Order: sequence, then structure tokens, then C-alpha cells
Amino acid sequence: MTRIVQKFGGTSVADIPRIKHVAGLVKREVDAGNEVAVIVSAMAGTTDQLERWAMETAPEHGKKEHDVVLSTGEQITCGLLSIALQAMGVEARSFLGWQIPIITDDNHTKSRILNIETGDLETFLEGGNVAVIPGFQGVAPGQRISTLGRGGSDTSAVALAAALRAERCDIYTDVDGVYTCDPRIVAKARKLDKITYEEMLEFASQGAKVLQTRSVAMAMRNHVRLLVRSTFEDVPGTLVIGEDEIMEQSVVSGIAYNRDEAKITLVQVADRPGVAAAIFGPLADSNISVDMIVQNISEDGKTTDLTFTVPKADLEPALSTLKKKRKDLNCVNILSDAEVVKISIIGVGMRSHAGVAHMMFSTLADKGINIQVISTSEIKVSVLIAEEYTELALRALHTAYGLDAD
Amino acid sequence: MTRIVQKFGGTSVADIPRIKHVAGLVKREVDAGNEVAVIVSAMAGTTDQLERWAMETAPEHGKKEHDVVLSTGEQITCGLLSIALQAMGVEARSFLGWQIPIITDDNHTKSRILNIETGDLETFLEGGNVAVIPGFQGVAPGQRISTLGRGGSDTSAVALAAALRAERCDIYTDVDGVYTCDPRIVAKARKLDKITYEEMLEFASQGAKVLQTRSVAMAMRNHVRLLVRSTFEDVPGTLVIGEDEIMEQSVVSGIAYNRDEAKITLVQVADRPGVAAAIFGPLADSNISVDMIVQNISEDGKTTDLTFTVPKADLEPALSTLKKKRKDLNCVNILSDAEVVKISIIGVGMRSHAGVAHMMFSTLADKGINIQVISTSEIKVSVLIAEEYTELALRALHTAYGLDAD
Repeated sequence: MTRIVQKFGGTSVADIPRIKHVAGLVKREVDAGNEVAVIVSAMAGTTDQLERWAMETAPEHGKKEHDVVLSTGEQITCGLLSIALQAMGVEARSFLGWQIPIITDDNHTKSRILNIETGDLETFLEGGNVAVIPGFQGVAPGQRISTLGRGGSDTSAVALAAALRAERCDIYTDVDGVYTCDPRIVAKARKLDKITYEEMLEFASQGAKVLQTRSVAMAMRNHVRLLVRSTFEDVPGTLVIGEDEIMEQSVVSGIAYNRDEAKITLVQVADRPGVAAAIFGPLADSNISVDMIVQNISEDGKTTDLTFTVPKADLEPALSTLKKKRKDLNCVNILSDAEVVKISIIGVGMRSHAGVAHMMFSTLADKGINIQVISTSEIKVSVLIAEEYTELALRALHTAYGLDAD
Repeated sequence: MTRIVQKFGGTSVADIPRIKHVAGLVKREVDAGNEVAVIVSAMAGTTDQLERWAMETAPEHGKKEHDVVLSTGEQITCGLLSIALQAMGVEARSFLGWQIPIITDDNHTKSRILNIETGDLETFLEGGNVAVIPGFQGVAPGQRISTLGRGGSDTSAVALAAALRAERCDIYTDVDGVYTCDPRIVAKARKLDKITYEEMLEFASQGAKVLQTRSVAMAMRNHVRLLVRSTFEDVPGTLVIGEDEIMEQSVVSGIAYNRDEAKITLVQVADRPGVAAAIFGPLADSNISVDMIVQNISEDGKTTDLTFTVPKADLEPALSTLKKKRKDLNCVNILSDAEVVKISIIGVGMRSHAGVAHMMFSTLADKGINIQVISTSEIKVSVLIAEEYTELALRALHTAYGLDAD
């Protein structure tokens, strides 16, 4: 018997007809002879409604009770999907977080899973029955309900697949896989059959919202094979697996973009030890995370220009934090620009290939696109450019790296 | 310290402003130095929505999963009220059915409470903290969530008050107490300060929907003092207590009516042993409960007319069941009438007073109202009359028994 975990997101279970459709997708795996555990999200919109109620009751409120309220969304889907499965003749029941139990820490509203006691669950699955489990939640010390934070259902699915030593974790969603680039912008984008965990992590953190970064990292650590596939169309999805499982690797697997960053430049800041700490310390204290950083070569040996990016939503707080410190920083000016986009080429193959970054720079130069900031990692090259060039840059790079569909 | 249980129904917690208002009512009791445990219903409309979803998923479905879905309604209110209390500076937390635990049998969707393990709860209350507990639910063997059936929150409140040996169980609702008669019909109806359990049971079963019959019976068995009061108006309510606590008892405490019954008459049915069993056996098998029964005196010694009432909703099924048995019953005709009302005068004082029933019959006769069926118990007299006389009869009886407000 092959054991698999299926995970269905909020849009996949948004209403009763969809829940029945999902039951059909579960039954298909059962009929194929698999042992199946299912993780479900709340019906689309439910979590937002519950969150609004909690906020309306008190904008600042206790996290434990917040979790009591929010966890009901997945519980409802769990019961309804079990009912739908039973109506199709599939032996199914719900297992709530506290019933299994899925043990988490007590960092309520963003708890981490510590352990899943799978004994009873495995016996149940081995009997040919389907377990339906609410995503996003567990039970913290003191027997209190905990939640894992937004998008936590992916994490629940991967953690369960790891604990059950499942052959595969199928993530059903409203897209049918991972693409070489956003198909809404690049018409020639191709769906990838396979992608490595490392690449998927870069895609996720670069703004491609197919999977939560946290769940991909957990899958990588635990060697859980993920299959991203569509709830609504019966087409092959994208398998997210270890590098060792992919025989032939293209140099660049795909291109991601992220419009959610803004650029800040400190003009002529003193070029001496401790300055970077003086800048980024206060930002960290304000809980603002800095992404790309570039420090220009000091012309006069005394001052330098320092450029970095922050999430767009944090631009105003970041500027106000820096302005308060301006005297200490002793800089001539603080400039900012929210009209930027970060574009990243991603591929584990670039580790062993030279000239990958150069092709990016020359392709952009050919189109007259100025690069404002560059940052690189082992498997990606990111550049910051003016936002108005987004589409032009993505299409040109997609062609340049040979990613276009035939 | 006085320990009390407060119970708030669905209309009392229908939206966030009302939940905040309810938090104020809880805080008032805390500020008065009481130990307070609170039972809440689901926000009005929520249980219906959950039930519709379950029915839409599969009209016939497993009761255990039904309970998983339906129990979320009270869980939401529970978390939100705890948040509202914390925002007012009251130390409060939710205790779900499985956390306490409230142990029930496994008769899912209409479970009975077997035991409430109050140890942790009492320690918590003694610390001056407020426990907020979802009504209508508990945990059945196998650690499955169970529910107590519609209106089960009253039962939860009474059971908790009994287990905690609470001084009082306050039932907050959208009416401000128990009246001598429905004030929408009898303008001179008075609110009762006190009423006995026995009378309240009769009121409840006669169609006055202030409290669930089941919860009143449980309060009587366990000597739990109930206070029915308004969530929305700060006025004294009605205390429901034992007969021994009421010094002076009026002969008739109030008048109830019920339009939900229909009358069936079997004309000239054989007057021999076993006939009643032949009639009521098949009805019981069809799960139809029969209320008033009257068998006329046999004129010829061979046949008799038999009249009884069933719930209006069961009239058609009852008639079709009887028609199938008509040959066995050997009756001349089967008549039915849905245009009837049952009117009951209720009072523990009538045990020691003669002439109470006679006043009812003569008052109705004076108004030209024909009595179709009579049934009596120790503390009530009920008559069935044509529905069109409902208002006339209620007002006349209210005056005749001296119940009118000054």
C-alpha cells in the first residue's frame, strides 16, 4: 500500500459543491489502493471572517482565545468533507489536532509543530480508512488549541507526511503547478514537471505564492516529496523533490519577480566601522526585515552611498526610524523609491555553469533597462529595476534562458 | 463568595456589539464579588448555517461528523466572549467541552451529560477568574465531540450549575421573565417573580418557549435555582425554584396555549379490549407522539368515538398510518381538525383548591366556546377548543382567575 497525504486549500473547499468534488479526488486515490490522510483548510473567506470578529471584539487580544476562534474554520471543513466521503461510501472520519494529537509549542497564533503522535492514525489508515485532519492547528501545552499562522495548512500537510513516512504529499490548489514564470505575464511560460526544494524555496520567497516557504523548508529537511497540482483540472502537476532525484537539470529553472519591495538609499553616509550596525540595528528593532543590500565603493574614502530594500508596507516606518537616527548616521540625504521590482533567475544548475549572471545583465542592457541593485546566492541572481520594465524584462529573460515553450 | 452560572442564548450573542454587552453583564457579577462560570450559545443563525451545510453535503449523514461541524458555533462565541472579557480587564478563558471535560454518552446529536469533572474548573473559579464554556456540547467515549440537541445550551448551564453547586443559574434571554400569559395576546399579563419547577415544566411543555423542558426537569432534580432574565433590559426576572421556597402560592399561576396540535377522531371504533393498543401502537412505531386522549362513553356498548391530538406536523403521517390500519380498527370514519388550540391553566395551588377546573369550564361556556377535549394533571387543566377563540379564551380566563395586572 502506498501512503499519501492530500492537502486542499481554501479555494478548493470554498463551498459544498467543491467539497463534494474534493471528496471525489480523495476517493480516486482510495480506489487506486492508496492509504490516504487528508489535510483541509478553512472554506475560503471563513478565516478572514473569524479574524474580523476577533479584531472587532478587541483589536489587541489574547492569542490563546484567538486560536480558539480561528481553529473552527478548518474544523467545519473537516466534518463536512468526512460527511461527503461517507456519502460516497468511503470510510472516513475527522481527527482534530487535539485528538491525534498534533503537539505544538505554546507560541500561539504562530506555533511550531513539535511532534505528531501517529500511532492511532496509522492503525486507522492501515484499516483502509481515510483520516480527515484540519490544517493550521494543533494542541499546545495545557491542552489549549494552537494555530500555526496563515498558510499553516501547507506546513500541517508536510509535517503529517513526514510523520506518516508518506510516499508523497499532494498539494491541491487553484493553479496546476509551478511555472518557469508567471503565465499571466509571460505567455510562453512552461509548467515544470520537476523542481528541486532549493529552487522552490527561492520561488516561494521571491513572491511566487504557490507554496509557503516554511512548508518547503520542512519538506526539504524531511525528504517529503511534494506534488503541486490543480483541484479543478485533471492535469499533471509539478513534483518538488531533492536534487538527487532529478537526473538532468537545466541551468535556469525559472524566473520570479516581486513587486513588494521598496528601495532606500542613504547618500554619503560615513564610511567607517559600525555604520552598517547603526543603520540596520534600529530597523531590526522596529521588526523591519531588510532584503537586498549594496554598498557603493567609497570615492573619497570617507563617505559611501548605501542602498537596500524593505517590504513596501514597511517603507514609511523604515524612513521614520532612519530619520530619527539621521544625526548619528551623519548622511547627506535619505532617498526612497517604491516603484521598483525585484527579478530573480533561479536554478540549481547555475552552480556549475559560468556566465549565467552575465547573460542576465546583458539581456537587460540590450533592452535599455538599468540595474539598480544586484544580489546573488548559490542558485539565484536577483536584480532590482524600475517597476515599469517588469513585463519587458521577464519576457526578454525568459527567451534568453531558453525557457520559452515551443 | 457566591458561585453563579450565567447562560446567554443565541440572540444575546448575535453579533460583536452584543457579545461586548454580554461581557459587561458578566463583569457586573464579577465586580459584585461572585465566582462566575458562563455558558454561551452560538451566535444566532450560525447553527442553522452549519446545519444547512451538513445537509447540503449529504441529507443523510454520520452523527459524529455532524457534531464536529455543529459544535464550532459555540466554540466561536466562547473565544470571542473571552476576548471581550479580557479587554475589560476580567481574567477569563474558554474551556471547551473536551477540555473540562463534560462527559456525555455516545448518542451523538442528542447526547446526555453523564458527568462534569469540575476539579480544574473550580480551582480556576476560586482564583477569581471567569470560565467561558460552550453550551450544547461535550465529549463522548472515544474522545469524539458530542452535542446535546437543539436548545442544549440550557441543559449545559443547569448541569454545570449542579456540578459546581452554584447558588444560582441565570438564564439570560430576549424576554425578561415568565409571564402569567403571553403578553402579546393578553395585555394585562403580569411577570411572575417566582414560579415552581413543576409549573415551569408545564409552561414549557405547553408551548411557552422560555426554557427547554429538559433543562427545567434537570434543575428540579438537582435543586438548581434558575433565574430567567433579560439580556437587554436591566429589570428583575423570574426565579424558578422548589415549591418549598415559595411561601404563598396563588391557585393558578398562569395560562399557556399551544397551537401546534391537531385533533383526530376515530368514529365508532369497536369498544373492546386491545383497541387502544391497535391504534396507538402503529403511531408510536411511526414515532408520532400522542398528547391528549379522550374516549367517549360507549352508547350502544359496542362502539365508541376516540379523540386524540398529535403535533400538527405529524397530522398527515398519522392519518396515513391510521388509514392503513382502518380495516383492523373497524371504524366508520376518521376525522381530523388542525384548527384547534390547547389552552392550559397551571398552578401548584390547585392541588389544594376545589372548583378550579369548574371556573375554567364556566368561563369558556359564558363566552360560548365549546370544549372539544379535556385533560388534567395534578397541577394543570387543559382544554382543546377551536383555534379562532384563542385570544378571547385567554383574556377571559386571565381575568377570571384574578391574574390581570392592576
